[in-house]
Amino acid sequence: MEKGGTLESFAAEHKKLLETALINYVGKIQAPDILKKAMVYSLEAGGKRIRPLLVFAVLSAFGKDTRLGIPAACAIEMIHTYSLIHDDLPSMDDDDLRRGKPTNHKVFGEANAILAGDALLTLSFQIIAQAAQPQVPAETALELIRELSKAAGAEGMVAGQAADIAGENKSLSLNELEYIHEHKTGKLLSISVLSGAILSGASYDQRRHLLQFSRDLGLAFQIRDDILDIEGTEEMIGKPVGSDAGNDKSTYPSLLTLDGAKQKLNEHIAQALAHLAKTNLDTGLLEEITNLIAARNH
Amino acid sequence: MEKGGTLESFAAEHKKLLETALINYVGKIQAPDILKKAMVYSLEAGGKRIRPLLVFAVLSAFGKDTRLGIPAACAIEMIHTYSLIHDDLPSMDDDDLRRGKPTNHKVFGEANAILAGDALLTLSFQIIAQAAQPQVPAETALELIRELSKAAGAEGMVAGQAADIAGENKSLSLNELEYIHEHKTGKLLSISVLSGAILSGASYDQRRHLLQFSRDLGLAFQIRDDILDIEGTEEMIGKPVGSDAGNDKSTYPSLLTLDGAKQKLNEHIAQALAHLAKTNLDTGLLEEITNLIAARNH
Repeated sequence: MEKGGTLESFAAEHKKLLETALINYVGKIQAPDILKKAMVYSLEAGGKRIRPLLVFAVLSAFGKDTRLGIPAACAIEMIHTYSLIHDDLPSMDDDDLRRGKPTNHKVFGEANAILAGDALLTLSFQIIAQAAQPQVPAETALELIRELSKAAGAEGMVAGQAADIAGENKSLSLNELEYIHEHKTGKLLSISVLSGAILSGASYDQRRHLLQFSRDLGLAFQIRDDILDIEGTEEMIGKPVGSDAGNDKSTYPSLLTLDGAKQKLNEHIAQALAHLAKTNLDTGLLEEITNLIAARNH
Repeated sequence: MEKGGTLESFAAEHKKLLETALINYVGKIQAPDILKKAMVYSLEAGGKRIRPLLVFAVLSAFGKDTRLGIPAACAIEMIHTYSLIHDDLPSMDDDDLRRGKPTNHKVFGEANAILAGDALLTLSFQIIAQAAQPQVPAETALELIRELSKAAGAEGMVAGQAADIAGENKSLSLNELEYIHEHKTGKLLSISVLSGAILSGASYDQRRHLLQFSRDLGLAFQIRDDILDIEGTEEMIGKPVGSDAGNDKSTYPSLLTLDGAKQKLNEHIAQALAHLAKTNLDTGLLEEITNLIAARNH
Protein backbone atom coordinates (compact mmCIF):
# COMPACT_ATOMS: atom_id res chain seq x y z
CA MET A 1 0.00 0.00 0.00
CA GLU A 2 1.25 3.51 -0.77
CA LYS A 3 1.46 6.13 1.93
CA GLY A 4 -0.26 9.53 2.58
CA GLY A 5 -1.57 11.81 -0.14
CA THR A 6 -2.97 8.98 -2.26
CA LEU A 7 -6.57 8.91 -1.06
CA GLU A 8 -8.02 9.53 -4.49
CA SER A 9 -6.39 6.52 -6.13
CA PHE A 10 -6.81 4.37 -3.01
CA ALA A 11 -10.54 5.19 -2.90
CA ALA A 12 -11.06 4.58 -6.63
CA GLU A 13 -9.21 1.27 -6.56
CA HIS A 14 -11.07 -0.01 -3.51
CA LYS A 15 -14.45 1.22 -4.71
CA LYS A 16 -13.98 -0.96 -7.76
CA LEU A 17 -12.86 -3.91 -5.63
CA LEU A 18 -15.90 -3.47 -3.39
CA GLU A 19 -18.45 -3.07 -6.15
CA THR A 20 -17.20 -6.10 -8.02
CA ALA A 21 -17.39 -8.19 -4.85
CA LEU A 22 -20.88 -6.91 -3.97
CA ILE A 23 -22.27 -7.91 -7.35
CA ASN A 24 -20.47 -11.27 -7.23
CA TYR A 25 -22.01 -12.11 -3.87
CA VAL A 26 -25.54 -11.42 -5.11
CA GLY A 27 -24.88 -12.88 -8.55
CA LYS A 28 -24.16 -16.32 -7.09
CA ILE A 29 -27.51 -16.49 -5.28
CA GLN A 30 -30.29 -18.70 -6.59
CA ALA A 31 -33.41 -16.66 -5.96
CA PRO A 32 -36.50 -15.33 -7.73
CA ASP A 33 -35.38 -12.88 -10.39
CA ILE A 34 -37.24 -9.87 -9.02
CA LEU A 35 -35.66 -10.32 -5.58
CA LYS A 36 -32.14 -10.40 -7.00
CA LYS A 37 -32.87 -7.40 -9.22
CA ALA A 38 -34.21 -5.41 -6.26
CA MET A 39 -31.10 -6.28 -4.22
CA VAL A 40 -28.70 -5.37 -7.03
CA TYR A 41 -30.57 -2.16 -7.91
CA SER A 42 -29.88 -0.57 -4.54
CA LEU A 43 -26.38 -2.02 -4.18
CA GLU A 44 -25.49 -0.45 -7.53
CA ALA A 45 -27.05 2.89 -6.65
CA GLY A 46 -23.59 3.83 -5.54
CA GLY A 47 -22.88 6.62 -3.13
CA LYS A 48 -19.59 7.43 -1.53
CA ARG A 49 -18.94 3.93 -0.13
CA ILE A 50 -17.49 5.70 2.89
CA ARG A 51 -18.01 2.71 5.23
CA PRO A 52 -16.09 0.20 3.08
CA LEU A 53 -13.42 2.86 2.51
CA LEU A 54 -12.96 3.11 6.28
CA VAL A 55 -12.54 -0.68 6.57
CA PHE A 56 -9.87 -0.64 3.88
CA ALA A 57 -8.14 2.50 5.19
CA VAL A 58 -7.82 1.05 8.70
CA LEU A 59 -6.30 -2.15 7.31
CA SER A 60 -3.91 -0.01 5.32
CA ALA A 61 -3.00 1.97 8.46
CA PHE A 62 -1.94 -1.35 10.03
CA GLY A 63 0.04 -2.24 6.89
CA LYS A 64 -2.25 -5.21 6.17
CA ASP A 65 -3.44 -6.54 2.81
CA THR A 66 -6.63 -4.54 2.30
CA ARG A 67 -8.29 -7.42 0.44
CA LEU A 68 -8.71 -9.07 3.84
CA GLY A 69 -11.44 -6.50 4.44
CA ILE A 70 -13.58 -7.30 1.40
CA PRO A 71 -16.15 -9.53 3.15
CA ALA A 72 -16.59 -7.16 6.11
CA ALA A 73 -16.73 -4.12 3.82
CA CYS A 74 -19.38 -5.79 1.64
CA ALA A 75 -21.37 -6.90 4.69
CA ILE A 76 -21.39 -3.39 6.13
CA GLU A 77 -22.33 -1.84 2.78
CA MET A 78 -25.19 -4.37 2.47
CA ILE A 79 -26.48 -3.40 5.90
CA HIS A 80 -26.21 0.28 5.00
CA THR A 81 -28.08 -0.41 1.75
CA TYR A 82 -30.85 -2.43 3.43
CA SER A 83 -31.33 0.39 5.95
CA LEU A 84 -31.76 2.92 3.14
CA ILE A 85 -34.31 0.69 1.37
CA HIS A 86 -36.38 0.29 4.55
CA ASP A 87 -35.97 3.97 5.58
CA ASP A 88 -37.31 5.12 2.23
CA LEU A 89 -40.55 3.12 2.56
CA PRO A 90 -43.85 5.03 2.65
CA SER A 91 -44.42 4.10 6.30
CA MET A 92 -40.94 5.38 7.22
CA ASP A 93 -39.48 8.49 5.50
CA ASP A 94 -41.60 8.05 2.35
CA ASP A 95 -38.91 9.08 -0.11
CA ASP A 96 -39.35 8.73 -3.87
CA LEU A 97 -35.76 9.55 -4.77
CA ARG A 98 -32.41 8.38 -3.43
CA ARG A 99 -29.20 9.69 -5.00
CA GLY A 100 -31.28 11.04 -7.86
CA LYS A 101 -32.80 7.63 -8.73
CA PRO A 102 -36.28 6.30 -7.87
CA THR A 103 -36.21 4.51 -4.52
CA ASN A 104 -36.38 0.71 -4.39
CA HIS A 105 -40.10 0.46 -3.59
CA LYS A 106 -40.92 2.89 -6.40
CA VAL A 107 -39.34 0.45 -8.87
CA PHE A 108 -40.10 -2.97 -7.35
CA GLY A 109 -43.08 -2.29 -5.09
CA GLU A 110 -43.16 -2.14 -1.32
CA ALA A 111 -43.31 -5.88 -0.67
CA ASN A 112 -40.23 -6.62 -2.76
CA ALA A 113 -38.38 -3.64 -1.26
CA ILE A 114 -39.01 -4.95 2.25
CA LEU A 115 -37.85 -8.43 1.19
CA ALA A 116 -34.77 -7.12 -0.64
CA GLY A 117 -33.81 -5.31 2.57
CA ASP A 118 -34.38 -8.43 4.67
CA ALA A 119 -32.32 -10.48 2.22
CA LEU A 120 -29.39 -8.02 2.21
CA LEU A 121 -29.32 -7.94 6.01
CA THR A 122 -29.29 -11.73 6.15
CA LEU A 123 -26.66 -12.02 3.42
CA SER A 124 -24.31 -9.70 5.30
CA PHE A 125 -23.90 -12.24 8.11
CA GLN A 126 -23.63 -15.13 5.65
CA ILE A 127 -20.74 -13.45 3.87
CA ILE A 128 -18.69 -13.00 7.03
CA ALA A 129 -19.48 -16.51 8.25
CA GLN A 130 -18.39 -17.94 4.89
CA ALA A 131 -15.21 -15.88 4.69
CA ALA A 132 -13.84 -17.39 7.88
CA GLN A 133 -11.47 -19.85 6.27
CA PRO A 134 -8.64 -19.79 5.44
CA GLN A 135 -7.53 -16.14 5.90
CA VAL A 136 -9.57 -15.25 8.96
CA PRO A 137 -9.68 -17.47 12.08
CA ALA A 138 -13.15 -18.58 13.16
CA GLU A 139 -12.87 -16.60 16.42
CA THR A 140 -12.18 -13.42 14.45
CA ALA A 141 -15.13 -13.99 12.11
CA LEU A 142 -17.38 -14.58 15.11
CA GLU A 143 -16.18 -11.39 16.77
CA LEU A 144 -16.95 -9.47 13.58
CA ILE A 145 -20.48 -10.93 13.53
CA ARG A 146 -20.96 -10.12 17.21
CA GLU A 147 -19.88 -6.51 16.79
CA LEU A 148 -21.68 -6.04 13.47
CA SER A 149 -24.97 -7.38 14.80
CA LYS A 150 -24.72 -5.12 17.86
CA ALA A 151 -23.94 -2.10 15.68
CA ALA A 152 -26.76 -2.84 13.22
CA GLY A 153 -29.52 -4.01 15.56
CA ALA A 154 -31.79 -2.89 18.37
CA GLU A 155 -28.88 -1.40 20.33
CA GLY A 156 -27.39 0.24 17.27
CA MET A 157 -28.65 1.48 13.93
CA VAL A 158 -32.23 0.22 14.38
CA ALA A 159 -32.41 1.97 17.78
CA GLY A 160 -31.43 5.21 16.08
CA GLN A 161 -34.07 4.78 13.42
CA ALA A 162 -36.76 3.98 16.03
CA ALA A 163 -35.75 7.05 18.08
CA ASP A 164 -35.77 9.17 14.92
CA ILE A 165 -39.34 8.09 14.13
CA ALA A 166 -40.45 8.62 17.73
CA GLY A 167 -38.93 12.12 17.63
CA GLU A 168 -40.60 13.27 14.40
CA ASN A 169 -42.40 16.60 14.63
CA LYS A 170 -41.06 17.07 18.16
CA SER A 171 -38.36 19.53 19.06
CA LEU A 172 -35.41 17.54 20.34
CA SER A 173 -32.66 18.44 22.76
CA LEU A 174 -29.06 18.27 21.59
CA ASN A 175 -28.67 15.06 23.64
CA GLU A 176 -31.64 13.44 21.92
CA LEU A 177 -30.35 14.52 18.51
CA GLU A 178 -26.92 13.05 19.29
CA TYR A 179 -28.48 9.78 20.48
CA ILE A 180 -30.26 9.46 17.14
CA HIS A 181 -27.19 10.23 15.06
CA GLU A 182 -24.75 8.18 17.14
CA HIS A 183 -27.02 5.19 16.56
CA LYS A 184 -28.61 5.76 13.17
CA THR A 185 -25.42 6.64 11.30
CA GLY A 186 -22.67 6.53 13.92
CA LYS A 187 -22.76 2.85 14.84
CA LEU A 188 -22.24 1.68 11.27
CA LEU A 189 -19.34 4.10 10.75
CA SER A 190 -17.80 2.86 14.01
CA ILE A 191 -18.16 -0.80 13.11
CA SER A 192 -16.44 -0.03 9.79
CA VAL A 193 -13.41 1.28 11.65
CA LEU A 194 -13.64 -1.48 14.27
CA SER A 195 -13.84 -4.22 11.61
CA GLY A 196 -10.57 -3.03 10.13
CA ALA A 197 -9.05 -3.03 13.62
CA ILE A 198 -10.34 -6.53 14.48
CA LEU A 199 -9.06 -7.93 11.19
CA SER A 200 -5.68 -6.28 11.82
CA GLY A 201 -5.31 -7.68 15.32
CA ALA A 202 -5.31 -4.20 16.91
CA SER A 203 -4.27 -3.80 20.54
CA TYR A 204 -6.81 -2.78 23.19
CA ASP A 205 -5.49 0.81 23.17
CA GLN A 206 -5.50 1.06 19.39
CA ARG A 207 -9.10 -0.11 19.33
CA ARG A 208 -10.05 2.41 21.96
CA HIS A 209 -8.45 5.33 20.08
CA LEU A 210 -9.94 4.19 16.78
CA LEU A 211 -13.41 3.89 18.31
CA GLN A 212 -13.14 7.40 19.75
CA PHE A 213 -11.96 8.58 16.33
CA SER A 214 -14.95 6.93 14.66
CA ARG A 215 -17.41 8.50 17.10
CA ASP A 216 -16.18 12.03 16.33
CA LEU A 217 -16.03 11.21 12.65
CA GLY A 218 -19.66 10.03 12.70
CA LEU A 219 -20.92 13.15 14.42
CA ALA A 220 -18.90 15.36 12.06
CA PHE A 221 -20.41 13.45 9.14
CA GLN A 222 -23.94 14.11 10.38
CA ILE A 223 -23.37 17.79 11.19
CA ARG A 224 -21.92 18.31 7.73
CA ASP A 225 -25.06 16.61 6.35
CA ASP A 226 -27.30 19.04 8.19
CA ILE A 227 -25.23 22.02 7.02
CA LEU A 228 -25.38 20.76 3.42
CA ASP A 229 -29.16 20.56 3.67
CA ILE A 230 -29.11 24.35 4.13
CA GLU A 231 -26.13 25.41 2.02
CA GLY A 232 -26.04 22.76 -0.68
CA THR A 233 -27.72 22.74 -4.08
CA GLU A 234 -30.14 19.99 -5.08
CA GLU A 235 -27.67 18.85 -7.73
CA MET A 236 -24.91 18.54 -5.13
CA ILE A 237 -26.85 16.49 -2.59
CA GLY A 238 -29.21 14.49 -4.81
CA LYS A 239 -32.36 15.42 -2.88
CA PRO A 240 -34.41 18.61 -2.48
CA VAL A 241 -32.54 21.28 -0.49
CA GLY A 242 -34.13 22.30 2.80
CA SER A 243 -36.07 19.04 3.10
CA ASP A 244 -35.15 18.80 6.80
CA ALA A 245 -36.53 22.27 7.58
CA GLY A 246 -39.64 21.45 5.55
CA ASN A 247 -40.17 18.38 7.75
CA ASP A 248 -39.83 20.40 10.96
CA LYS A 249 -36.89 18.16 11.76
CA SER A 250 -34.49 19.05 14.57
CA THR A 251 -31.00 19.53 13.14
CA TYR A 252 -27.66 20.84 14.39
CA PRO A 253 -28.19 24.23 12.69
CA SER A 254 -31.72 24.51 14.09
CA LEU A 255 -30.45 23.78 17.60
CA LEU A 256 -27.09 25.59 17.45
CA THR A 257 -27.50 28.12 14.59
CA LEU A 258 -25.58 27.58 11.36
CA ASP A 259 -22.41 29.12 12.76
CA GLY A 260 -22.70 27.06 15.92
CA ALA A 261 -23.06 23.90 13.85
CA LYS A 262 -19.96 24.77 11.84
CA GLN A 263 -18.01 25.33 15.04
CA LYS A 264 -19.19 21.96 16.41
CA LEU A 265 -18.18 20.30 13.15
CA ASN A 266 -14.68 21.72 13.47
CA GLU A 267 -14.44 20.56 17.08
CA HIS A 268 -15.30 16.98 16.16
CA ILE A 269 -12.86 17.00 13.25
CA ALA A 270 -10.07 18.25 15.52
CA GLN A 271 -10.87 15.60 18.12
CA ALA A 272 -11.04 12.87 15.48
CA LEU A 273 -7.59 13.80 14.24
CA ALA A 274 -6.25 13.92 17.80
CA HIS A 275 -7.50 10.39 18.48
CA LEU A 276 -5.91 9.16 15.26
CA ALA A 277 -2.57 10.61 16.26
CA LYS A 278 -2.58 8.44 19.40
CA THR A 279 -2.77 5.16 17.49
CA ASN A 280 0.87 5.23 16.33
CA LEU A 281 -0.28 3.93 12.96
CA ASP A 282 0.24 5.12 9.41
CA THR A 283 -3.00 7.13 9.44
CA GLY A 284 -2.44 9.37 6.39
CA LEU A 285 -5.45 7.99 4.52
CA LEU A 286 -7.71 8.18 7.57
CA GLU A 287 -6.70 11.83 8.11
CA GLU A 288 -7.52 12.60 4.50
CA ILE A 289 -10.93 10.91 4.84
CA THR A 290 -11.60 12.97 7.96
CA ASN A 291 -10.73 16.24 6.24
CA LEU A 292 -12.80 15.23 3.23
CA ILE A 293 -15.84 14.64 5.44
CA ALA A 294 -15.39 18.10 6.98
CA ALA A 295 -15.37 19.70 3.55
CA ARG A 296 -17.60 17.40 1.49
CA ASN A 297 -20.30 18.98 -0.61
CA HIS A 298 -22.40 15.89 -1.38
CA MET B 1 -33.70 -37.01 28.95
CA GLU B 2 -36.59 -39.49 29.11
CA LYS B 3 -37.40 -41.71 26.18
CA GLY B 4 -40.41 -42.12 23.83
CA GLY B 5 -43.99 -41.34 24.80
CA THR B 6 -43.09 -38.20 26.71
CA LEU B 7 -43.59 -35.55 24.05
CA GLU B 8 -46.18 -33.64 26.02
CA SER B 9 -43.97 -33.06 29.05
CA PHE B 10 -40.85 -32.59 26.89
CA ALA B 11 -42.62 -29.95 24.81
CA ALA B 12 -44.06 -28.12 27.84
CA GLU B 13 -40.72 -28.07 29.64
CA HIS B 14 -38.79 -26.83 26.63
CA LYS B 15 -41.43 -24.28 25.65
CA LYS B 16 -40.92 -22.70 29.06
CA LEU B 17 -37.14 -22.85 28.69
CA LEU B 18 -37.39 -21.22 25.27
CA GLU B 19 -39.81 -18.48 26.24
CA THR B 20 -37.81 -17.50 29.30
CA ALA B 21 -34.66 -17.29 27.19
CA LEU B 22 -36.38 -15.28 24.44
CA ILE B 23 -37.58 -12.64 26.88
CA ASN B 24 -34.19 -12.55 28.62
CA TYR B 25 -32.39 -11.88 25.36
CA VAL B 26 -34.64 -8.93 24.52
CA GLY B 27 -34.86 -7.74 28.13
CA LYS B 28 -31.11 -7.13 28.26
CA ILE B 29 -31.15 -4.82 25.24
CA GLN B 30 -30.81 -1.06 25.67
CA ALA B 31 -33.15 0.35 23.05
CA PRO B 32 -36.06 2.76 22.70
CA ASP B 33 -38.99 1.46 24.70
CA ILE B 34 -41.41 1.14 21.78
CA LEU B 35 -38.92 -0.96 19.82
CA LYS B 36 -38.43 -3.41 22.69
CA LYS B 37 -42.18 -3.59 23.28
CA ALA B 38 -42.84 -4.34 19.62
CA MET B 39 -40.18 -7.08 19.63
CA VAL B 40 -41.52 -8.68 22.83
CA TYR B 41 -45.16 -8.41 21.72
CA SER B 42 -44.67 -10.74 18.78
CA LEU B 43 -42.22 -13.03 20.56
CA GLU B 44 -44.82 -13.52 23.29
CA ALA B 45 -47.65 -14.10 20.84
CA GLY B 46 -46.81 -17.74 21.25
CA GLY B 47 -47.77 -20.36 18.77
CA LYS B 48 -46.63 -23.95 18.72
CA ARG B 49 -42.88 -23.23 18.93
CA ILE B 50 -42.48 -26.17 16.58
CA ARG B 51 -39.07 -25.00 15.29
CA PRO B 52 -37.42 -24.74 18.72
CA LEU B 53 -39.04 -28.05 19.66
CA LEU B 54 -37.32 -29.66 16.67
CA VAL B 55 -33.92 -28.28 17.74
CA PHE B 56 -34.40 -29.71 21.24
CA ALA B 57 -35.83 -33.04 20.04
CA VAL B 58 -32.87 -33.65 17.71
CA LEU B 59 -30.41 -32.92 20.53
CA SER B 60 -32.39 -35.36 22.65
CA ALA B 61 -32.24 -37.99 19.90
CA PHE B 62 -28.45 -37.73 20.08
CA GLY B 63 -28.56 -38.00 23.89
CA LYS B 64 -27.18 -34.46 24.30
CA ASP B 65 -28.04 -31.86 26.91
CA THR B 66 -30.93 -30.04 25.23
CA ARG B 67 -29.95 -26.72 26.86
CA LEU B 68 -27.11 -26.59 24.34
CA GLY B 69 -29.82 -25.75 21.78
CA ILE B 70 -31.25 -22.69 23.53
CA PRO B 71 -29.36 -20.02 21.53
CA ALA B 72 -30.07 -21.68 18.17
CA ALA B 73 -33.71 -22.35 19.10
CA CYS B 74 -34.18 -18.71 20.15
CA ALA B 75 -32.44 -17.44 17.02
CA ILE B 76 -34.67 -19.54 14.76
CA GLU B 77 -37.83 -18.51 16.64
CA MET B 78 -36.78 -14.85 16.31
CA ILE B 79 -36.36 -15.28 12.56
CA HIS B 80 -39.73 -17.01 12.34
CA THR B 81 -41.28 -14.17 14.37
CA TYR B 82 -39.68 -11.41 12.25
CA SER B 83 -40.97 -13.13 9.11
CA LEU B 84 -44.51 -13.14 10.48
CA ILE B 85 -44.30 -9.44 11.40
CA HIS B 86 -43.12 -8.49 7.91
CA ASP B 87 -45.53 -10.90 6.16
CA ASP B 88 -48.50 -9.36 7.96
CA LEU B 89 -47.70 -5.82 6.76
CA PRO B 90 -50.26 -4.04 4.55
CA SER B 91 -47.94 -4.22 1.52
CA MET B 92 -47.48 -7.98 2.03
CA ASP B 93 -50.39 -10.17 3.22
CA ASP B 94 -52.18 -7.27 4.97
CA ASP B 95 -53.36 -9.26 7.97
CA ASP B 96 -54.97 -7.60 10.98
CA LEU B 97 -54.95 -10.70 13.18
CA ARG B 98 -52.31 -13.28 14.01
CA ARG B 99 -53.12 -16.09 16.44
CA GLY B 100 -56.25 -14.20 17.44
CA LYS B 101 -54.33 -11.04 18.44
CA PRO B 102 -53.89 -7.78 16.49
CA THR B 103 -50.81 -7.96 14.26
CA ASN B 104 -47.69 -6.05 15.20
CA HIS B 105 -48.24 -3.10 12.86
CA LYS B 106 -51.83 -2.76 14.09
CA VAL B 107 -50.50 -2.15 17.60
CA PHE B 108 -47.19 -0.33 17.01
CA GLY B 109 -47.61 1.14 13.52
CA GLU B 110 -45.99 0.01 10.29
CA ALA B 111 -42.64 1.73 10.80
CA ASN B 112 -42.06 0.18 14.21
CA ALA B 113 -43.24 -3.22 12.97
CA ILE B 114 -40.69 -3.12 10.14
CA LEU B 115 -37.96 -2.08 12.59
CA ALA B 116 -38.95 -4.71 15.17
CA GLY B 117 -38.63 -7.33 12.44
CA ASP B 118 -35.25 -5.99 11.35
CA ALA B 119 -34.07 -5.96 14.96
CA LEU B 120 -35.19 -9.55 15.62
CA LEU B 121 -33.44 -10.78 12.48
CA THR B 122 -30.23 -9.02 13.49
CA LEU B 123 -30.46 -10.24 17.10
CA SER B 124 -30.76 -13.85 15.95
CA PHE B 125 -27.21 -13.80 14.57
CA GLN B 126 -25.89 -11.91 17.58
CA ILE B 127 -27.24 -14.57 19.93
CA ILE B 128 -25.47 -17.40 18.15
CA ALA B 129 -22.24 -15.43 17.80
CA GLN B 130 -22.29 -14.65 21.54
CA ALA B 131 -23.10 -18.20 22.59
CA ALA B 132 -19.93 -19.54 21.05
CA GLN B 133 -17.89 -19.82 24.20
CA PRO B 134 -17.48 -21.94 26.21
CA GLN B 135 -19.93 -24.74 25.29
CA VAL B 136 -19.86 -24.41 21.51
CA PRO B 137 -16.58 -24.18 19.53
CA ALA B 138 -16.24 -21.10 17.32
CA GLU B 139 -16.26 -23.27 14.16
CA THR B 140 -19.59 -24.79 15.19
CA ALA B 141 -21.15 -21.39 15.91
CA LEU B 142 -19.95 -20.13 12.52
CA GLU B 143 -21.42 -23.16 10.78
CA LEU B 144 -24.75 -22.49 12.49
CA ILE B 145 -24.66 -18.86 11.30
CA ARG B 146 -23.74 -19.93 7.77
CA GLU B 147 -26.59 -22.44 7.56
CA LEU B 148 -29.11 -20.22 9.33
CA SER B 149 -28.39 -17.24 7.07
CA LYS B 150 -28.74 -19.45 3.98
CA ALA B 151 -32.02 -20.89 5.27
CA ALA B 152 -33.44 -17.49 6.17
CA GLY B 153 -32.23 -15.34 3.29
CA ALA B 154 -32.53 -14.84 -0.45
CA GLU B 155 -31.93 -18.54 -1.14
CA GLY B 156 -34.26 -19.65 1.60
CA MET B 157 -37.26 -18.22 3.41
CA VAL B 158 -37.13 -14.80 1.73
CA ALA B 159 -37.01 -16.50 -1.70
CA GLY B 160 -40.20 -18.36 -0.79
CA GLN B 161 -41.92 -15.18 0.29
CA ALA B 162 -40.86 -13.36 -2.90
CA ALA B 163 -42.11 -16.28 -5.03
CA ASP B 164 -45.34 -16.34 -3.06
CA ILE B 165 -45.95 -12.65 -3.75
CA ALA B 166 -45.03 -13.04 -7.43
CA GLY B 167 -47.49 -15.95 -7.66
CA GLU B 168 -50.48 -14.17 -6.13
CA ASN B 169 -53.67 -14.36 -8.18
CA LYS B 170 -51.96 -16.71 -10.61
CA SER B 171 -52.72 -20.41 -10.82
CA LEU B 172 -49.57 -22.26 -9.90
CA SER B 173 -48.29 -25.67 -10.89
CA LEU B 174 -47.59 -28.22 -8.16
CA ASN B 175 -43.86 -27.61 -8.71
CA GLU B 176 -44.26 -23.88 -8.21
CA LEU B 177 -46.35 -24.44 -5.11
CA GLU B 178 -43.72 -26.80 -3.68
CA TYR B 179 -40.95 -24.28 -4.42
CA ILE B 180 -42.82 -21.68 -2.40
CA HIS B 181 -43.47 -23.97 0.54
CA GLU B 182 -40.05 -25.60 0.59
CA HIS B 183 -38.56 -22.13 0.89
CA LYS B 184 -41.14 -20.08 2.78
CA THR B 185 -41.76 -22.59 5.57
CA GLY B 186 -39.56 -25.58 4.74
CA LYS B 187 -36.12 -24.00 5.03
CA LEU B 188 -36.69 -22.81 8.58
CA LEU B 189 -38.01 -26.22 9.66
CA SER B 190 -34.98 -27.85 8.04
CA ILE B 191 -32.49 -25.54 9.73
CA SER B 192 -34.16 -26.34 13.06
CA VAL B 193 -33.41 -30.02 12.55
CA LEU B 194 -29.97 -29.28 11.09
CA SER B 195 -29.04 -27.00 14.01
CA GLY B 196 -29.70 -29.84 16.43
CA ALA B 197 -27.57 -32.11 14.25
CA ILE B 198 -24.69 -29.62 13.98
CA LEU B 199 -24.68 -29.03 17.73
CA SER B 200 -24.69 -32.81 18.30
CA GLY B 201 -21.78 -33.47 15.98
CA ALA B 202 -23.88 -35.61 13.63
CA SER B 203 -22.17 -37.73 10.98
CA TYR B 204 -22.56 -36.92 7.29
CA ASP B 205 -25.11 -39.72 6.85
CA GLN B 206 -27.09 -38.73 9.91
CA ARG B 207 -27.30 -35.16 8.63
CA ARG B 208 -28.43 -36.37 5.23
CA HIS B 209 -31.21 -38.54 6.66
CA LEU B 210 -32.30 -35.80 9.05
CA LEU B 211 -32.41 -33.24 6.24
CA GLN B 212 -34.54 -35.57 4.13
CA PHE B 213 -36.77 -36.11 7.16
CA SER B 214 -37.13 -32.35 7.63
CA ARG B 215 -38.03 -31.80 3.99
CA ASP B 216 -40.92 -34.29 4.15
CA LEU B 217 -41.95 -32.93 7.52
CA GLY B 218 -42.08 -29.39 6.12
CA LEU B 219 -44.24 -30.34 3.17
CA ALA B 220 -46.54 -32.38 5.41
CA PHE B 221 -46.82 -29.35 7.69
CA GLN B 222 -47.86 -27.12 4.79
CA ILE B 223 -50.33 -29.59 3.28
CA ARG B 224 -51.96 -30.02 6.70
CA ASP B 225 -52.19 -26.21 6.87
CA ASP B 226 -54.02 -26.08 3.54
CA ILE B 227 -56.39 -28.88 4.62
CA LEU B 228 -57.12 -27.08 7.89
CA ASP B 229 -58.01 -23.94 5.96
CA ILE B 230 -60.89 -25.96 4.47
CA GLU B 231 -61.82 -28.30 7.31
CA GLY B 232 -60.89 -26.28 10.40
CA THR B 233 -63.00 -23.87 12.41
CA GLU B 234 -61.97 -20.26 12.91
CA GLU B 235 -61.50 -20.96 16.60
CA MET B 236 -59.16 -23.86 15.85
CA ILE B 237 -56.88 -22.02 13.43
CA GLY B 238 -57.06 -18.43 14.76
CA LYS B 239 -57.89 -16.86 11.39
CA PRO B 240 -60.95 -16.84 9.15
CA VAL B 241 -61.63 -20.27 7.60
CA GLY B 242 -61.39 -20.42 3.82
CA SER B 243 -59.17 -17.34 3.61
CA ASP B 244 -56.94 -19.06 1.05
CA ALA B 245 -59.85 -19.83 -1.28
CA GLY B 246 -61.11 -16.27 -0.82
CA ASN B 247 -57.70 -15.01 -1.98
CA ASP B 248 -57.72 -17.22 -5.09
CA LYS B 249 -54.59 -18.79 -3.68
CA SER B 250 -53.25 -22.01 -5.14
CA THR B 251 -53.24 -24.72 -2.45
CA TYR B 252 -52.69 -28.46 -2.30
CA PRO B 253 -56.45 -29.16 -2.16
CA SER B 254 -57.11 -26.78 -5.09
CA LEU B 255 -54.46 -28.53 -7.18
CA LEU B 256 -54.97 -32.13 -6.00
CA THR B 257 -58.53 -32.18 -4.56
CA LEU B 258 -59.02 -32.53 -0.82
CA ASP B 259 -58.64 -36.33 -0.95
CA GLY B 260 -55.54 -36.04 -3.10
CA ALA B 261 -54.03 -33.59 -0.61
CA LYS B 262 -54.72 -35.97 2.25
CA GLN B 263 -53.04 -38.80 0.37
CA LYS B 264 -50.01 -36.59 -0.32
CA LEU B 265 -49.87 -35.67 3.36
CA ASN B 266 -49.80 -39.35 4.32
CA GLU B 267 -47.05 -40.06 1.79
CA HIS B 268 -44.81 -37.34 3.21
CA ILE B 269 -45.45 -38.50 6.77
CA ALA B 270 -44.53 -42.08 5.84
CA GLN B 271 -41.34 -40.90 4.10
CA ALA B 272 -40.42 -38.68 7.03
CA LEU B 273 -40.69 -41.63 9.41
CA ALA B 274 -38.69 -43.84 7.05
CA HIS B 275 -35.83 -41.30 6.95
CA LEU B 276 -35.86 -41.06 10.74
CA ALA B 277 -35.53 -44.82 11.03
CA LYS B 278 -32.27 -44.70 9.07
CA THR B 279 -30.52 -42.38 11.54
CA ASN B 280 -29.99 -45.07 14.20
CA LEU B 281 -30.88 -42.51 16.85
CA ASP B 282 -33.38 -42.45 19.68
CA THR B 283 -36.04 -40.77 17.53
CA GLY B 284 -39.14 -41.39 19.68
CA LEU B 285 -39.84 -37.70 20.21
CA LEU B 286 -39.27 -36.82 16.55
CA GLU B 287 -41.69 -39.57 15.50
CA GLU B 288 -44.29 -38.20 17.88
CA ILE B 289 -43.80 -34.68 16.50
CA THR B 290 -44.23 -36.06 12.98
CA ASN B 291 -47.47 -37.83 13.84
CA LEU B 292 -48.70 -34.75 15.65
CA ILE B 293 -48.13 -32.61 12.57
CA ALA B 294 -50.10 -35.10 10.47
CA ALA B 295 -53.04 -34.88 12.85
CA ARG B 296 -52.82 -31.32 14.19
CA ASN B 297 -55.93 -29.22 14.20
CA HIS B 298 -54.41 -25.78 14.76
